[in-house]
Amino acid sequence: MPVIFWLVPISSVTALLFAYYFFKQMLGYDEGTDMMKKIAKHVRDGAGAYLRQQYKVVLLVFLILTAIFSVMAFGLGIQNKWVPFAFLSGGAFSGLAGFFGMRAATFASSRVANACRESLNGGLRLAFRSGAVMGLVVVGLVLLDISIWFVILNLAIPEAEFGFKLLTITATMLTFGMGASTQALFARVGGGIYTKAADVGADLVGKVEAGIPEDDPRNPATIADNVGDNVGDVAGMGADLFESFAGSILATALLGAAAFVGYGSEMQFNAVMAPMLIAAIGTLLSIAGVFMVRTREGATQKELLKSLGLGVNTSAALIIVFSLGVLYFLGFENFWGLWGSIVVGLLAGIAIGQSTEYFTASAYAPTRRIAKASETGPATIIIAGIGTGLISAAIPLGIIVVAITLSYLFASGFTFDVANLNLGLYGIGIAAVGMLSTLGITLATDAYGPIADNAGGNAEMAKLGAEVRKRTDALDSLGNTTAATGKGFAIGSAALTALALLAAYFEEVKMMFVKFLDMPEFLIHGKDGAVEAQYANFIDFIYHYEIHLMNPKVLVGVFLGVMSVFLFSGMTMNAVGRAAQKMVDEVRRQFKTIPGILEGTAEPDYARCVAISTKGAQREMMLPSFVALLIPVIVGLIFGVAGVTGLLIGTITSGFALAIFMANAGGAWDNAKKYIEEGNHGGKGSDCHKAAVIGDTVGDPFKDTSGPSLNILIKLMVMASVVTVGVAVSYSLL
Amino acid sequence: MPVIFWLVPISSVTALLFAYYFFKQMLGYDEGTDMMKKIAKHVRDGAGAYLRQQYKVVLLVFLILTAIFSVMAFGLGIQNKWVPFAFLSGGAFSGLAGFFGMRAATFASSRVANACRESLNGGLRLAFRSGAVMGLVVVGLVLLDISIWFVILNLAIPEAEFGFKLLTITATMLTFGMGASTQALFARVGGGIYTKAADVGADLVGKVEAGIPEDDPRNPATIADNVGDNVGDVAGMGADLFESFAGSILATALLGAAAFVGYGSEMQFNAVMAPMLIAAIGTLLSIAGVFMVRTREGATQKELLKSLGLGVNTSAALIIVFSLGVLYFLGFENFWGLWGSIVVGLLAGIAIGQSTEYFTASAYAPTRRIAKASETGPATIIIAGIGTGLISAAIPLGIIVVAITLSYLFASGFTFDVANLNLGLYGIGIAAVGMLSTLGITLATDAYGPIADNAGGNAEMAKLGAEVRKRTDALDSLGNTTAATGKGFAIGSAALTALALLAAYFEEVKMMFVKFLDMPEFLIHGKDGAVEAQYANFIDFIYHYEIHLMNPKVLVGVFLGVMSVFLFSGMTMNAVGRAAQKMVDEVRRQFKTIPGILEGTAEPDYARCVAISTKGAQREMMLPSFVALLIPVIVGLIFGVAGVTGLLIGTITSGFALAIFMANAGGAWDNAKKYIEEGNHGGKGSDCHKAAVIGDTVGDPFKDTSGPSLNILIKLMVMASVVTVGVAVSYSLL
Repeated sequence: MPVIFWLVPISSVTALLFAYYFFKQMLGYDEGTDMMKKIAKHVRDGAGAYLRQQYKVVLLVFLILTAIFSVMAFGLGIQNKWVPFAFLSGGAFSGLAGFFGMRAATFASSRVANACRESLNGGLRLAFRSGAVMGLVVVGLVLLDISIWFVILNLAIPEAEFGFKLLTITATMLTFGMGASTQALFARVGGGIYTKAADVGADLVGKVEAGIPEDDPRNPATIADNVGDNVGDVAGMGADLFESFAGSILATALLGAAAFVGYGSEMQFNAVMAPMLIAAIGTLLSIAGVFMVRTREGATQKELLKSLGLGVNTSAALIIVFSLGVLYFLGFENFWGLWGSIVVGLLAGIAIGQSTEYFTASAYAPTRRIAKASETGPATIIIAGIGTGLISAAIPLGIIVVAITLSYLFASGFTFDVANLNLGLYGIGIAAVGMLSTLGITLATDAYGPIADNAGGNAEMAKLGAEVRKRTDALDSLGNTTAATGKGFAIGSAALTALALLAAYFEEVKMMFVKFLDMPEFLIHGKDGAVEAQYANFIDFIYHYEIHLMNPKVLVGVFLGVMSVFLFSGMTMNAVGRAAQKMVDEVRRQFKTIPGILEGTAEPDYARCVAISTKGAQREMMLPSFVALLIPVIVGLIFGVAGVTGLLIGTITSGFALAIFMANAGGAWDNAKKYIEEGNHGGKGSDCHKAAVIGDTVGDPFKDTSGPSLNILIKLMVMASVVTVGVAVSYSLL
Repeated sequence: MPVIFWLVPISSVTALLFAYYFFKQMLGYDEGTDMMKKIAKHVRDGAGAYLRQQYKVVLLVFLILTAIFSVMAFGLGIQNKWVPFAFLSGGAFSGLAGFFGMRAATFASSRVANACRESLNGGLRLAFRSGAVMGLVVVGLVLLDISIWFVILNLAIPEAEFGFKLLTITATMLTFGMGASTQALFARVGGGIYTKAADVGADLVGKVEAGIPEDDPRNPATIADNVGDNVGDVAGMGADLFESFAGSILATALLGAAAFVGYGSEMQFNAVMAPMLIAAIGTLLSIAGVFMVRTREGATQKELLKSLGLGVNTSAALIIVFSLGVLYFLGFENFWGLWGSIVVGLLAGIAIGQSTEYFTASAYAPTRRIAKASETGPATIIIAGIGTGLISAAIPLGIIVVAITLSYLFASGFTFDVANLNLGLYGIGIAAVGMLSTLGITLATDAYGPIADNAGGNAEMAKLGAEVRKRTDALDSLGNTTAATGKGFAIGSAALTALALLAAYFEEVKMMFVKFLDMPEFLIHGKDGAVEAQYANFIDFIYHYEIHLMNPKVLVGVFLGVMSVFLFSGMTMNAVGRAAQKMVDEVRRQFKTIPGILEGTAEPDYARCVAISTKGAQREMMLPSFVALLIPVIVGLIFGVAGVTGLLIGTITSGFALAIFMANAGGAWDNAKKYIEEGNHGGKGSDCHKAAVIGDTVGDPFKDTSGPSLNILIKLMVMASVVTVGVAVSYSLL
């Protein structure tokens, strides 16, 4: 193993050490009054209980899937024998990351509220560093898992002709992403249902029927609502990006192994190393960025945003410089081109974030137009939100199209010629890694949001003074902006990761094809392969698996992919409706049967609401999850590789569009409501405000359940296809 | 020309004669009181004014496009010289059909209302036969245009080797569909915006603010609302299905010419004839079916529905029998298989209609659940509608998948082998023709709905007695059911037609390829072509145009297709919002400035509202229409054939899903509201009812503007790609 590899485990351990340091530092802060401690404990216990329950279910699913993969590996021989173990480790590491991140968040909220009693600056720094625990744990654990497996497999797998060793290593490691995907599926879907069932339920009875404000301790669902922010926005988002980070690095490593087979074993090794090294350096730069976030007392929201931006942007600017060095150092002939792909990925991430901000922030025309539509009632504000949300999806779709085209062309040497196909696909993977390289700090700004939100809830329930509440509000409002751009970033990176995975899927099929033909020289691309042989091999491959566009099975697959997306979104949407209904019934029951609850003389039964949300989320997440896991296998069994390829293309494209539409429409309604609350169109309590509250409630499952769950769906379906590729290749019916 | 061909023009003329007969017969009925006449004249004049205005705009667009196609044909030589003329004739015939259909509908409404003063049976028969005018004019004119062009081109185009003559004829005729598509685009988008701007505007101020009932003559927008039913639901639907009918027959004729090149010239000719003959016989059977629709006085809704069903189902059953005879008579070796494809198409149409009914009728669980969600307010009824609408899209997607697979396999002889590819694609086309064969009568049941609706409006405004109103309500309510299934049928047939067109697109590319290679023998498939030569040719073709799934241009195309769909839907959605806003302002202004209007002593300025809707629709339809027309050309110029193919696949699949989602969610909200009005969940005036009215208003642009416009988008984008195929082949950048 060359020396430079050790940068990966080193940066991993560094990230984990800093996460531990920030966590300990945060624990050293005072938790405030007894009331604050009590509330924080309620939320922490609720979140812990949820996670324990969820992990039980997930464990069962993992055991079943591991059994299936073991049969495929050891029984049928259509799967590498390392797969079940890689799968388990990915799930375990992702679960650990979720656990640590949420621990940090739930310990932080009361401490942030307390720090805000002293100063805004202290509150910001504490909230942000607590968020950084999540960010650093995620990237640290991904890099750790990658390092361990790379060392093990490098020792265990024997040398082979035609670069087959590295291909096998990277193809095996990719399946560790399947564990992360499965974990993320349940975290996003379950967490998303939990948080919105509690939120919608709390709002419908508390705000609308009983007329008490948000986060009021008299509302029995208010603790569940705060727990929801943690399990949905912290743990769910963390698992989502854990998967993207792991998936993009691993897929790109495999694409590198495939693209550089003909360039000599050292170059092939370096191509595999490149995504890992870029991620490792990005992680170190993220840690540096975290230390740059601080602000002066009495800072405006703009200054707060600027201070967060400084940390994030400095890391991004530095990774651009360093990655050029890495590519040059690794000896890539076309290092300028590959560097171009990285820059494209980073810029695409920023551009998608900007477009999200434009379409969802009340400073811009779209959200203002939606707010204005409230003047003719709830129906027109909903029509306006849906219309604008649909249009808003076009921009990120356009950005992704440009990003795919440019990152491919930069890496392929500006040609679409088949001889350079694998180089181009490697470029798309490298772009995804570039977008995610500074995840350590971008995820910190995401996780910061719900921590600030919970600190505000804690301050409200503990009845701290108006000054404190104003400070937590400033942090919270900032959190809403970072959450919106964070969501754009999460879905953008999910799309690029899914595309890298799709390219990796073809590599897996190709390796099956080689086994089938017993012809490893087929894998040779680039320099050493004779062009004519390549051409013949390539079309043989296309023809054998019928992966051309005149094949009706491909078309059928695309239809099924779109179908999966609509079915999955509809199911998660209805799941929130049903779970929220149960919460509404419970809150109404408590208001009716517990005397003195609305006067504030009796304490509501918070735990019961937490339990109802937990149970509802667990039950409701099963069906959509099985849809996501089973469809790729079923399509593979019936329509083979061509059908699965169509399926994945349909899922990725329409899932991406629907996710953006839902996230943006939801975000815009949320901010249109806040814009009205600031005194526009009649302000709080006006008819316009009532219409906007309805819009906001409709948007809740859009932006926090169905939309983000689609991020997972598009990655998981590709992952599931990669892992079960042997089924589609060997057992397809048609 | 063989004798059997003349069945096509004969059935065309027969259909037109019966349309004329039904029209004259309807005109013979009494129009009722002076008030009824006056109202009907208002609506008729408004509809006429709208159509004149629309046709002016469309004429301009046609002149521009004809100029472009002429440059392509005569200047650049990348287009057949007949294309500009075929294009113009398709547009003109479709325009004529819309004009006649709407004339009939607007003359009928007062007469139907008057007939209902006597008996329900008389009202039903009159309304239905007036609807049949539209149905028969559409199918008659399509078959007439096809007959004329087939005769002309058969004389004008010289004999050629390898079946090239029929290929050229059918490829040229296909472009007549482009004229129909362009006409349909403006009819659906403009009409859809018109009708919902008027409806939403009338409801928001009239029902919600002023508290006056629907169709109340005191509401200035009420005439515009009734005009809207005619221009949106009659003319728009007619143009939509004109396009589907023409497109499916013409695409299948081309696919037949391609699939049977190697089977001898007579067989090739018969394969081209088959779709025309099936459509011709279906037309004659439709006329017979129209005569079967009648009912007894005092019939229940169930009996009314049964009497409509009897006509439709008898025609469908008979076409199944007759088409087997046609296929046998034409000498198809695999006539059983092709017949299977026809049956699959018909069954798929019925199944999609059934699924639409299940998800939108208040007799079934989904709509009832949506109605129940009104108990927790407008937000939850909207969440429930969207969730259920998304899920409901999965069923028709599944049906289409099964229909594609089976119709392909039946026609190809149960194989996916490339040698039988064209036979299989011909089967998909034949399935589309089968689904649409009895369009004459199914379209009559669609057009019947808005006629009954307008008759109800006429009765209400003319203050006819409760007994009359009850009868028109029975007809209207029946119209709502047939409208929902009609919408399902329209979108289902649009999808199958678009797929047939997509297959035809490949044929057009192939013909370009042959020109490029100067190798007409490439076109030989089936019996006479040696398998090895075919295989080599086929992969050459795939490779030359890079239409395989590892090509990133294909992926980019699919992303752009999904983007087009979302952009187009969002634009039409927002267009309704903006146009409705103008209508709201105008109605408010009239209520404020015209004294005595709400007391019924002064007449509102109906004409101004009609003019506002007209202007709004005309302005708003331009941008989405240009998106639909330009995107295929731009994508072709940049990404070539591979990009365009991806684009079309993305548009068809996601457009179909979004259209079903929107139509079903809108229909379900509409019927949930009606269900509550029947006295459930508190009945009319309750909070649940108010929530349901909001849901219904949101659903208006869903089901009557954006949803149906997507039917056109998916067909038009393929058509535009077919017509501009020379651009993508010869001038693509990448």
